[in-house]
Amino acid sequence: MRAAKIYGTKDIRVEETAIPPLEAGKVLVKVDYAGICGSDMHEFVAGTFPIRTQPVLGHEFSGTVVEVGEGVTTVEPGDQVAVEPLIACGHCSNCRRGMANLCSNSGGYGYSISGGFAEYAVVKEENAFKLPAEMDVKLGALVEPTAVAVHAVRQSTLRLGDTAAIFGAGPIGLLLLQAVKAAGASEIIVVEVSDDRREKALELGATHVLNPVEVDAVARIKELTDGGVDVAFDAAGVQATFLSGVSAVRKGGEFKVVSLWEQPVTFSPNSFVKTEAKITGSYAYANLFPEVIRLLAGGIIDGNKVITSLIPLSDIVEKGFETLANDRKQCKILVDMHLS
Amino acid sequence: MRAAKIYGTKDIRVEETAIPPLEAGKVLVKVDYAGICGSDMHEFVAGTFPIRTQPVLGHEFSGTVVEVGEGVTTVEPGDQVAVEPLIACGHCSNCRRGMANLCSNSGGYGYSISGGFAEYAVVKEENAFKLPAEMDVKLGALVEPTAVAVHAVRQSTLRLGDTAAIFGAGPIGLLLLQAVKAAGASEIIVVEVSDDRREKALELGATHVLNPVEVDAVARIKELTDGGVDVAFDAAGVQATFLSGVSAVRKGGEFKVVSLWEQPVTFSPNSFVKTEAKITGSYAYANLFPEVIRLLAGGIIDGNKVITSLIPLSDIVEKGFETLANDRKQCKILVDMHLS
Repeated sequence: MRAAKIYGTKDIRVEETAIPPLEAGKVLVKVDYAGICGSDMHEFVAGTFPIRTQPVLGHEFSGTVVEVGEGVTTVEPGDQVAVEPLIACGHCSNCRRGMANLCSNSGGYGYSISGGFAEYAVVKEENAFKLPAEMDVKLGALVEPTAVAVHAVRQSTLRLGDTAAIFGAGPIGLLLLQAVKAAGASEIIVVEVSDDRREKALELGATHVLNPVEVDAVARIKELTDGGVDVAFDAAGVQATFLSGVSAVRKGGEFKVVSLWEQPVTFSPNSFVKTEAKITGSYAYANLFPEVIRLLAGGIIDGNKVITSLIPLSDIVEKGFETLANDRKQCKILVDMHLS
Repeated sequence: MRAAKIYGTKDIRVEETAIPPLEAGKVLVKVDYAGICGSDMHEFVAGTFPIRTQPVLGHEFSGTVVEVGEGVTTVEPGDQVAVEPLIACGHCSNCRRGMANLCSNSGGYGYSISGGFAEYAVVKEENAFKLPAEMDVKLGALVEPTAVAVHAVRQSTLRLGDTAAIFGAGPIGLLLLQAVKAAGASEIIVVEVSDDRREKALELGATHVLNPVEVDAVARIKELTDGGVDVAFDAAGVQATFLSGVSAVRKGGEFKVVSLWEQPVTFSPNSFVKTEAKITGSYAYANLFPEVIRLLAGGIIDGNKVITSLIPLSDIVEKGFETLANDRKQCKILVDMHLS
């Protein structure tokens, strides 16, 4: 089969490789769609992660079951599925606390096992989630990034009627925007430097968008919300958004950081001690694919609105990774395995 | 009356001053004991806070009611009381949320109104909390700093049986130690550079004490607790303890910062994003004097163990502020108004 493999910084090649063997308890999936994630971009730009033990990329994907291994009962050939890439051990103290995303011994499709930028993937039965008949299989490739946003909102203190700010309107920022809206936020302020992305945010339900280059975002947020939002989310990962995020929440509010960071930040802890603000992290998701499939299938979160391109696997570097690195109009780019 | 007034950095003078007038709804208290707080030290060393609008210091104090104003019904002459220094407005959005400590319009005895380093104080009826007959009035001066520690523990996620670490074993650190012990922590690891303070921590119930100059405190904490404590508390306020505190908590754990900071810190947000740790602030206390009086009166928290000196008001600079600045053996120094 053809697959996209990463060999190092700026070195991704589409090559011929063997289909992984189908074993008992596993499912052979013909991949339909696979999305390029910000973390794939990190590896392309800055080098592979330590958890990578094999080269076939892709951890956001959907496909059609073509064959099932011995003992598989929950899916059958012809079913369309979204694949959860996380493989948790189930027995470490984090798994036992329900935090499979923080498993001490985790692996994953697209990292430790061949991933979704390939014609076929072999995945454990429990990692293949059947999509409802009415759901476009294309949206199946958005379950994984949407789960990141939904997990962050569920882990946060945000409640129906609260106000929220989102720093950064890339794919995760726009999914967060839709997730906080779906969770009943009454004001949603998106802070983003790109004109195109601010426009997209308005289209997706932001009540206000701010360009931090032109206005003092924190001062404006405090004006709009009587002293600060209940919850601010960071989906940008830079010093400026960290400082703004901590200061944009009301006293006792929460700054939820979803982004990964390439540089350290410098700040005064007084900024959250004197306000009793909470600074919290959100990482991936745990046991959330069924909820997210329902949100996407029902259009409560509109996955189609974040998809900006469909490209063939053969063009993944030029029309995928390189385009994402240079074009701020792009949001989620999916490899469409039906294109050639 | 005699009172200690602050005029600027390193400039505190004991002078004659007028007794504030007793008005309706207020109580005239003859001060018995008043403690020197770390925040008083900050003002002595680094200059007065912006909230200071009058010079008479002292916000940790107890005394005996000598006269009550019109309409006062809950205390009478002869009653011994602990004075809560915070005066919250009661109507801002923070007060309405139960966060009087974060009141947008707050004032306080020892800051905006004449405080406890004086022979007399006039305080609102609702700020005078009657002590039980069996409670030493000296312990009344410890209610305020103990409330800081009890609030931090109550605001934290610490639950019965959890493990805790405390960075810094000054007065607040040692009160935190007793508070987490009283709350049922099963392992309490205190990290402190001073030999005397580590010894005191052991005496007060720490299960382990670590000198971070000699051992890698984070590595040792992770060893002792299967990957990190449930909650770490910072009562030191320096870069080294911030970095250690964030890393000393288990995945999903909490780093609760109680200290105020003179310098910014530099750290990577990945340190809490990838672990889903929570970094939270705790500031003063709200509506907590009755609980803390019960804890101290019942000996559940032993206030006497943190008192290291009783000094006369006339010696407050030399035997109080200057001694605290130089002698790490000192913990809580009380001005004893019966001494001369």
